[in-house]
Amino acid sequence: MSTPRGKMVNAFNPDSLSSLPPATRDAIARRARLLGPAYRLFYQDPVQVSRGQGTKLYDRDGNDYLDAYNNVVPLGHCHPRVVEAVTRQMQTLCTHTRYIQDGILDYAESLLPSFGGRIAAAGHMMFTCTGSEANDLAMRIAKHVTGRHGIICTAEAYHGNSDLTASFSPSLGDQSPLGTWVRRVPAPDSYHGDPATLGQRMAEAVTERAWELRRHGDGLAAFIADSLFSSDGIFATPEVLKPVAEAVRAAGGLFVADEVQSGFARSGERFWGFQRHGIDPDIVTMGKPMGNGYPVAGIAIIPEVIAEFGRDTRYFNTFGGNGVAMAAAQATLDTIRDEGVQDNVTRIGALLTEGLRSLAARFEAIGDVRGAGLYLGVEMIRDGAPDAAAAGRIVNDLRARRVLISATGPNANVLKIRPPLVFSEADADRLLSETEAVLRAL
Amino acid sequence: MSTPRGKMVNAFNPDSLSSLPPATRDAIARRARLLGPAYRLFYQDPVQVSRGQGTKLYDRDGNDYLDAYNNVVPLGHCHPRVVEAVTRQMQTLCTHTRYIQDGILDYAESLLPSFGGRIAAAGHMMFTCTGSEANDLAMRIAKHVTGRHGIICTAEAYHGNSDLTASFSPSLGDQSPLGTWVRRVPAPDSYHGDPATLGQRMAEAVTERAWELRRHGDGLAAFIADSLFSSDGIFATPEVLKPVAEAVRAAGGLFVADEVQSGFARSGERFWGFQRHGIDPDIVTMGKPMGNGYPVAGIAIIPEVIAEFGRDTRYFNTFGGNGVAMAAAQATLDTIRDEGVQDNVTRIGALLTEGLRSLAARFEAIGDVRGAGLYLGVEMIRDGAPDAAAAGRIVNDLRARRVLISATGPNANVLKIRPPLVFSEADADRLLSETEAVLRAL
Repeated sequence: MSTPRGKMVNAFNPDSLSSLPPATRDAIARRARLLGPAYRLFYQDPVQVSRGQGTKLYDRDGNDYLDAYNNVVPLGHCHPRVVEAVTRQMQTLCTHTRYIQDGILDYAESLLPSFGGRIAAAGHMMFTCTGSEANDLAMRIAKHVTGRHGIICTAEAYHGNSDLTASFSPSLGDQSPLGTWVRRVPAPDSYHGDPATLGQRMAEAVTERAWELRRHGDGLAAFIADSLFSSDGIFATPEVLKPVAEAVRAAGGLFVADEVQSGFARSGERFWGFQRHGIDPDIVTMGKPMGNGYPVAGIAIIPEVIAEFGRDTRYFNTFGGNGVAMAAAQATLDTIRDEGVQDNVTRIGALLTEGLRSLAARFEAIGDVRGAGLYLGVEMIRDGAPDAAAAGRIVNDLRARRVLISATGPNANVLKIRPPLVFSEADADRLLSETEAVLRAL
Repeated sequence: MSTPRGKMVNAFNPDSLSSLPPATRDAIARRARLLGPAYRLFYQDPVQVSRGQGTKLYDRDGNDYLDAYNNVVPLGHCHPRVVEAVTRQMQTLCTHTRYIQDGILDYAESLLPSFGGRIAAAGHMMFTCTGSEANDLAMRIAKHVTGRHGIICTAEAYHGNSDLTASFSPSLGDQSPLGTWVRRVPAPDSYHGDPATLGQRMAEAVTERAWELRRHGDGLAAFIADSLFSSDGIFATPEVLKPVAEAVRAAGGLFVADEVQSGFARSGERFWGFQRHGIDPDIVTMGKPMGNGYPVAGIAIIPEVIAEFGRDTRYFNTFGGNGVAMAAAQATLDTIRDEGVQDNVTRIGALLTEGLRSLAARFEAIGDVRGAGLYLGVEMIRDGAPDAAAAGRIVNDLRARRVLISATGPNANVLKIRPPLVFSEADADRLLSETEAVLRAL
């Protein structure tokens, strides 16, 4: 289980600095001087970007890059409707939640029904700026209402960069400490395990870890999972979390569905990733795509869980839920609905999956193609074992052909394909044909 | 030291709901239904806002409110230069820090020299979305580099809403738990203590608490203070933190200057509040006013402190340091400099202080007028004791006259006056004359 210090899949490695063009070297040196050593760039030849439009990024020479990676702009880069909504609201008012304003209430009202279950029936929205803040707040509330500290996450989870969320984000590497009360369960690996029993085995692991937390003198506050298990390697077997949710409830913990990556129609099939699992979470957290680039995030929560916290203390986030954030979120949500974005995800997702599976049939380096909607993982293997080198080469060779993807998973061997939700058929064709070319040259 | 559950100075109290206009009652009921019980409104008659311009907010009937409270818009509401910069950048590109972009580097380069000392010489900037995230990151780094967990803050400090920062934010009330390794020292109360010895006494308290942290098996990771002690009651005696910084260093801890409230020219005299204390902090945290309303925050840090963290792990914040955040921050900084905002703070701050002191000479309910620049505290007393009722009445009576301030301090008896930095002489006159009218009617 040992990982090198500061490991990160697809991080630029400064050892290859000398092979880069002078302008890139200068920019990297300037970054190191001004931003310090904790920042990472992507790719062995980091990309300089100057402009974005739809599913394309452009460098300063005007070269276009196909963006098959950035989930923060579900409607594509610089979507005019969001830009206009933000501009109009910035010209009108940008202030906080301690005055009465309509925008935040209108947005909460338009989003809450999408969750179904207990949240749609009587739940509340609370707004933060980032997904990290949303997960941090969810756990603060879970600890408050349960009176316990125990958190169970998956083996290579990522849930945020705050002190608390980093403590249950093992994918940050072995030198980033896990919390005293954090326990891990294996992710539901549909490639190496039998999909039919994944959920039951995960539920048994949760029960065992919850028992261990009690045995050590505390107990389970909450279980949290990304509904598409992004940093664990992208696993999308439906219904897996259903027995897990039952085990969590039996142990007295809350179920937190981390929809920062899997929410807002990403899976195509359903608006929220957890809905593919047939569960009714106590708290849902969301972020990245929510404002098409504007910093906005939040949680949806059942009333029973927030009552005590709301009585004993309060939540205020200076920028969270401000008028402009709400305008960005509303325009993004309305556009997703008005432009049939979820249908596009289903259609293009199926097309990409089919194309990748057809490549898998021809290239034995591909062990598995999986995912849902426009969140796809392609597992690279060699003699049946994980092949991080191949994944790294494909990611960097695609970057050289100006197609941007990344890689993920504990063994760094899973291609991560996660484009804007407005990815077109032509975009999918370009991604597939460039991937094929790269596989041929492997 | 006991405080009521969920206490908050100047929070709307639902017990007075029946006396409010129907539209306000409806909005409050709708908020409770959609946002739940953890949100708080200001004032006994909460303000509905629809529009903002400069130092004014407007309700839906077009009534103007003089804003003497909101520090998030230092340049005033809806400043055109920031709106334009954000719009232009949103139309061009909004993406994250794992690609090479110039804006973030240009901004870091233009801000770093302002800190002076070791940070100006060789320091780095790291970007978050909120002040809470900035303080949380500062402490994650402090714990990593020192290998210890101990944090010392002031008695009624507020440093954020994340799990970690809330654990050293005692002003959230007795039901919001302080951390196991958190200790508190009294704030440098210049009204009740001798200003000449405040710093020395605070330093002695820090030394004692650091010893206690060691005695309990850990030790001091960092001391943190808001350089204007906002939630402690606003204290502005210069040089107080100088002996404190020496005590912190002697105990092996880092000194974190929380400039979320006191930074960006708020004090008038200096660009950063810590500079009034003649110290050279290890980490400076900043937020609220940084983007004139756009969610942007960050830390400045000396290289020695970030080296190990940067080697062992990494920092990534999806929205932090994105192109639009940097455009907002750059436009805000440039405007502060180009429009002589700091001089305005000094001039109007002096004028307001003088006006309030002249009221203090005539109204014995005012015990003290203090602060720096455009961050002023007015301590209300009765027979020498704190008078929270008078402070509450003044805040609410001013609101009835459409002038917005708030109150602060452990006894809720200190008026908090903290307007946009472009507050004009006419604004100051209106604030002073309305305050006088309210004091007369007290």
